[in-house]
Amino acid sequence: MATRTSDHPVRSRLEHAREAVAKASVDALLVTPSADLRYLVGYDATPLERLTCLVVPAAGEPHLVVPRLELPAAEASPAGDSGLDVVPWDETDDPYALVASLLAPSVGRVALDDHMWAAKVLAFRDAMPGVAQLPGGEMLGALRIRKSRDEVDALREAGRAIDRVHARMGEWLRAGRTEREVARDIRDAIVAEGHVRADFAIVGSGRNGASPHHEVSDRVIERGDPVVVDIGGTNLAGYCSDSTRTYAVGEPPAEFREYYAVLQRAQAAGCAAVRPGVTAESVDAAARTVITEAGYGDHFIHRTGHGIGLETHEPPYLVAGNDLPLEVGMAFSVEPGIYLPGRHGARIEDIVVVTDDGGERLNQVTTDLVVLTE
Amino acid sequence: MATRTSDHPVRSRLEHAREAVAKASVDALLVTPSADLRYLVGYDATPLERLTCLVVPAAGEPHLVVPRLELPAAEASPAGDSGLDVVPWDETDDPYALVASLLAPSVGRVALDDHMWAAKVLAFRDAMPGVAQLPGGEMLGALRIRKSRDEVDALREAGRAIDRVHARMGEWLRAGRTEREVARDIRDAIVAEGHVRADFAIVGSGRNGASPHHEVSDRVIERGDPVVVDIGGTNLAGYCSDSTRTYAVGEPPAEFREYYAVLQRAQAAGCAAVRPGVTAESVDAAARTVITEAGYGDHFIHRTGHGIGLETHEPPYLVAGNDLPLEVGMAFSVEPGIYLPGRHGARIEDIVVVTDDGGERLNQVTTDLVVLTE
Repeated sequence: MATRTSDHPVRSRLEHAREAVAKASVDALLVTPSADLRYLVGYDATPLERLTCLVVPAAGEPHLVVPRLELPAAEASPAGDSGLDVVPWDETDDPYALVASLLAPSVGRVALDDHMWAAKVLAFRDAMPGVAQLPGGEMLGALRIRKSRDEVDALREAGRAIDRVHARMGEWLRAGRTEREVARDIRDAIVAEGHVRADFAIVGSGRNGASPHHEVSDRVIERGDPVVVDIGGTNLAGYCSDSTRTYAVGEPPAEFREYYAVLQRAQAAGCAAVRPGVTAESVDAAARTVITEAGYGDHFIHRTGHGIGLETHEPPYLVAGNDLPLEVGMAFSVEPGIYLPGRHGARIEDIVVVTDDGGERLNQVTTDLVVLTE
Repeated sequence: MATRTSDHPVRSRLEHAREAVAKASVDALLVTPSADLRYLVGYDATPLERLTCLVVPAAGEPHLVVPRLELPAAEASPAGDSGLDVVPWDETDDPYALVASLLAPSVGRVALDDHMWAAKVLAFRDAMPGVAQLPGGEMLGALRIRKSRDEVDALREAGRAIDRVHARMGEWLRAGRTEREVARDIRDAIVAEGHVRADFAIVGSGRNGASPHHEVSDRVIERGDPVVVDIGGTNLAGYCSDSTRTYAVGEPPAEFREYYAVLQRAQAAGCAAVRPGVTAESVDAAARTVITEAGYGDHFIHRTGHGIGLETHEPPYLVAGNDLPLEVGMAFSVEPGIYLPGRHGARIEDIVVVTDDGGERLNQVTTDLVVLTE
């Protein structure tokens, strides 16, 4: 165990977590490999069947339980020199019983990270009979939802990197190529322009653009197609980019130009509605109203946005019913869309972070319709 | 809903799942986006916070519950024309209550896929008070553990693709480059040689090779370094490759050559032990005995292997205590290692599939020590 340093960033985040655990009246928080684990202790572990688990009791010291073969990786992470107690287990040990033994016998309620695998949830249930399991997502989300200055810098850097990919779209997006070919080039560019990995590259051409979560297909892009391009990656610090532009490959149908103009106004209205104190749902409403009033309300079939940080999708969600007041440092997508089934669709997406007096767009490529010609 | 076709491959797998559910005395199986879902219905959905869930009751018809915005993607998958009932839900619906309503009121026990997120496990628990939740991994694992001829073909194709990457290692692995630079080139090659994505590229040079799950670092590779290179990807059919070779960049230390020879014999002994009817742990023992008898037993700190298919890690696990008898079609890694903390390490890994009279190695690049010279 290294020297205990109370001003080590990991110690500080663990202390905030401990306070949150105590305030939620649970006895301990259990966190398996996930963005939550990376946020709390800087350890970017891969979720595997062997148990790695951070144990944060409401009172007392936290522990990081790791398979012995992961010990060097755990110790090489920021957790390693933070003074956090790292407890290895061997292939023939029962790691669930080990975690139970690290908790006080009086433990009655434990919170679990939202992405913990069911097999582990149920193994903990069996290793701790009578202990109530509660979702820890809200507690962990509250710790992560307001980004620090360093985190906003990391998101801004990711935003600039994905902007550079969109700015190069004409190199790859052409009639006669398949969506899959274009997506492969985009993925290479996502890495080349400043991410450690490409997370997704959605290329929805023609009628495929009418499915919001279409990824790619072998469809050959045709002249006149509108093409939805929704792309993102993760940078070295672990923060994500996510930006959508809809392009036209040659002159698109007139009806497409018509609703694209509506969408562009709606997306701008959503961004303009962002400021501290307004609710998450009010941003959704600002974008949605423009689309509904133009008669396309039935064609905007998803929420307006999702938070972003160490994960592409995290709180806050911009959706009807979410009356969470926005606070400085919250970061999320503003991404309305209009989808005409069987024909085509469009979506425009920027990441916006709440500032003292409004919102800063972290993506800056134009939202005007870009018509790519050869 | 499309025409019901009983010989559709999805119908056949769903019927086997239904039989397994009935035999396990549970009332229903719930499967969220995962390799299990892809195996059962061919739908390669991304795990997201919105609930997508296959419901397989012990009696009656299965259902696939999906967010409305995922409906086109679900219908475009093999599930779409299989006759499976696809049930969309809207942004303001409660999808957990919807799933509960699809089950008989008498339901008492449900099995969950192993990778279901804790937030969903606990939401199902709250939506179905009094219903016991059980791990579904064993049931699903038993369905997936014996690969069909088509699946073995897909694994063989993935094995050949990763072999081509290892055969090109001299292009990238050189003194003076960082592990991270080398890994980036390897990732590009994994895709170029026949995968839809690179899943991992571990480059452990010098002392980093002594940590079995080290990934990459900015360490500059030096002349004389042994380097563990453990790489894999997923091909278009969804099947994974995973192969490790340990290289020397210039002439390595004499002690390394000594234990590498032991390791090579151990890995060959593990592969040679594979045949129907022997236990999973006996393959581990065959490899481990060679290493222990040579005096390196304390330096082989992990199990010998893991199953592979639609996931890189899945049953069967080759580990002491697993007395599962091997059957034709089971596929797994054989990957002993020897690790000298603070100095260097080595691992050799092939994928082996059980055949009628032994095992077929799906990786065929040499296990002799390859010394790369400039």
